[in-house]
Amino acid sequence: MTRYAELAGELATLIEKGVLRAGERMPSTRKLSGNRKLSVATVMQAYYLLEDSGLIAARPRSGYYVNANWKDARAQPQLSKPPQRAAAMDVSELVFEVLGEIRKRNALPLGSAFPSPLLFPLPKLAQLLGQSARRLDPWKTVEDMSPGNPELRRQIAKRYSVHGVRMLPDDIVITSGALEALNLCLQAVTRAGDVVAIESPAFYGALQAIERLGLKAVAVATHPREGVDLGSLDKAIRKHGVKACWLMPTFQNPLGALMPDGKKKELVELLATHRVPLIEDDVYAELYFGAVRPLPAKAYDRAGLVMHCSSFSKSVAPGYRVGWCAPGIFAQKIERLKLSTSIATSIPVQGGLAEYLKHGGYDHHLRGLRRAFQAQQADMLRAIQKYFPLATRATRPAGGYFLWVELPPTVDALALHRRALKKGISITPGPLFAPGKQFANCVRLNYGHPWSEQLEAALLTLGRMATAMA
Amino acid sequence: MTRYAELAGELATLIEKGVLRAGERMPSTRKLSGNRKLSVATVMQAYYLLEDSGLIAARPRSGYYVNANWKDARAQPQLSKPPQRAAAMDVSELVFEVLGEIRKRNALPLGSAFPSPLLFPLPKLAQLLGQSARRLDPWKTVEDMSPGNPELRRQIAKRYSVHGVRMLPDDIVITSGALEALNLCLQAVTRAGDVVAIESPAFYGALQAIERLGLKAVAVATHPREGVDLGSLDKAIRKHGVKACWLMPTFQNPLGALMPDGKKKELVELLATHRVPLIEDDVYAELYFGAVRPLPAKAYDRAGLVMHCSSFSKSVAPGYRVGWCAPGIFAQKIERLKLSTSIATSIPVQGGLAEYLKHGGYDHHLRGLRRAFQAQQADMLRAIQKYFPLATRATRPAGGYFLWVELPPTVDALALHRRALKKGISITPGPLFAPGKQFANCVRLNYGHPWSEQLEAALLTLGRMATAMA
Repeated sequence: MTRYAELAGELATLIEKGVLRAGERMPSTRKLSGNRKLSVATVMQAYYLLEDSGLIAARPRSGYYVNANWKDARAQPQLSKPPQRAAAMDVSELVFEVLGEIRKRNALPLGSAFPSPLLFPLPKLAQLLGQSARRLDPWKTVEDMSPGNPELRRQIAKRYSVHGVRMLPDDIVITSGALEALNLCLQAVTRAGDVVAIESPAFYGALQAIERLGLKAVAVATHPREGVDLGSLDKAIRKHGVKACWLMPTFQNPLGALMPDGKKKELVELLATHRVPLIEDDVYAELYFGAVRPLPAKAYDRAGLVMHCSSFSKSVAPGYRVGWCAPGIFAQKIERLKLSTSIATSIPVQGGLAEYLKHGGYDHHLRGLRRAFQAQQADMLRAIQKYFPLATRATRPAGGYFLWVELPPTVDALALHRRALKKGISITPGPLFAPGKQFANCVRLNYGHPWSEQLEAALLTLGRMATAMA
Repeated sequence: MTRYAELAGELATLIEKGVLRAGERMPSTRKLSGNRKLSVATVMQAYYLLEDSGLIAARPRSGYYVNANWKDARAQPQLSKPPQRAAAMDVSELVFEVLGEIRKRNALPLGSAFPSPLLFPLPKLAQLLGQSARRLDPWKTVEDMSPGNPELRRQIAKRYSVHGVRMLPDDIVITSGALEALNLCLQAVTRAGDVVAIESPAFYGALQAIERLGLKAVAVATHPREGVDLGSLDKAIRKHGVKACWLMPTFQNPLGALMPDGKKKELVELLATHRVPLIEDDVYAELYFGAVRPLPAKAYDRAGLVMHCSSFSKSVAPGYRVGWCAPGIFAQKIERLKLSTSIATSIPVQGGLAEYLKHGGYDHHLRGLRRAFQAQQADMLRAIQKYFPLATRATRPAGGYFLWVELPPTVDALALHRRALKKGISITPGPLFAPGKQFANCVRLNYGHPWSEQLEAALLTLGRMATAMA
């Protein structure tokens, strides 16, 4: 480690331990350089690093002070700055390669896309699945094909209504998980060569779909707390003739950003003005830590242009592969696409999920799951603060089970991924979330697994590796 | 009805009742015209009709004789003659429209794509599904994603081995039914604008996939008993630079054609010479009426170019949506496509099917199912012969549950479909199986439902309608 980084680390510890308190003046650079026998330049570099990581701030003609809100400020990455062009995708191969490596068993699953299956009511689901399959009217195997089991669609619509989202069973098409829904939506509203607006960073599944369908993507500046920047989106639409937006306004993957309600409304209105459909990936919405479920963008959809997609995979039934789509004016198109690409979602599984929603105790389960994820997030953020290099920034999502970590610029996340994997630790490197190997120093971490000594040790190992690369 | 058609019908009845026996000379046209007070031309027209329908044949300088094998010959449509060009598809809208009408409940399901669900061991499946779901190791919800549950893949591979097809579990990717497998295969080996060779008539799902992916199709002459004509296929490949073939060599939908083993081998070798992948739709193979399971084309695949697709939907588990693909050298590509379009096939359902294959009594069930379909086919052919216009030709497939009926040229199958639907009878009109409204006088009938008075009455109604239109 360089001298300035060492000094910065030392001072950061003093701030974190409360020796240097919020609002207090930092020692002057001259004094510190004299006491420590370091050049003024070295001390200045250390102060820049602390400033950059949000711990201290300069006041004009007065020197450096400990930031009043350093605990919050420190963590937060800033608005992303993607290149302003529409480009064909080229990440799919990398994504497959890295995901293949990550999936190997026994690696500590910080890089996994899935939370621990042990947090889900699989025995209860299995019981209701068996029951409902045994009672299945054989003719339902034909009738419950696309758009899907009427009772399941009724239950889903009911949940939305409770949260104030107007939705009828007939608005819903059941799919094999949200990913199928999202892919069908994208197919329904684009043709090869079209431009799709995405977040920056974006869910790699969106990048892969765009690449597979021969589309182009324009990445839009995205704020790690509030989601995609609407001004930038407006510009991108005007400049590139965007044909669809694929966004995740609630607990965005990988950032965890939650777009505020008012901004969601603005987003939907903006897109309606341009007549651009919004493919809304809402799979994490039930995993909120606050008092109420964040509304989906769909709640503000008057033009029928929001193609809302979600699933039970992240909230209750991992591996069951049941999701849905509320595609507004594109409902018939989606129903037909589903019919002609995979006919139906497994009929007995649809019935089992409908039973679970009726009397499986979904809300009770969800409360426990949210508490678990929230506690695990706190553990992970604590460990990141403790073990990771000082200039590290991490998001603190208000829900979901991913957070986004920006490491010092010199850390190569792909190299870190490979080294970590050798120690039995998986992470998801940033370059998977954007074309052109952007976010080279970022990683997505999964806190969807119960905290443990192994996870604590893994964070320590990762922190040391990153520090050595910083 | 015209006079000549009336006379032909009368004579056909005499042949069918054995009054005029196989091999016997028919009354001379002169004599008949004298006795019946009809013009010689009218009698000749009646004889032409009988000849065309395979009941009688002319011998040079000797007159007409009752065909020795009229029972077989009568039924059989001839080799199809599709236009020899590669064309973009335009049938999807029609297919969706007609299928939507057909799906309406309570219509007698002669037009359905599915056999009666009552013929399947749904209670046994439900029991094993419940059992296996309750015992599911939660981590399997992550591990059994693409390429799928290892035990299920082992069971599938084992079944192939028993029938002499070399296949290992690792060759297999589990999919959400065969239709997903077929669609993934087509995506894997083509790009928009490519030409795909198909049968004539072809399964409408293939036509829809080709249309959706912006491909072109060249339909190849297809024999109703022996499948696609290899000479024509060879020519089409040379002429159009075909990038893939999507064929159904065993119990082709809609014809029911079964390509003989030797011809399958030739087909695979021909395609290997051209390095053209064969997408083999083999979903009906278990439904054979003969003594042994027909081998798939995959059995002759040395180059790894056969992408073999099948499922349990038609043989044991309707609506469960479990299929598979053995895509040869394209295995990784398919596995990745599956992962990035729908992640996985429902994990508990995969486990349930694996259990069923192990000790659910699959072969016992299949024997019963085959017997049922065979008996139902005989009932339907008898009814067609009894009620349909004389010049009707129908295939007699050696398996599956569809047959193909060629009505007199003046019968408009789409009009017949609409009229029949008003009487509560569904049929699948021929134009769904080819671009450009070919097969306008053909229909596909489903004999996958237990024979009943209602079905007998439906065939009578259809026959009358067709006769009125003839």
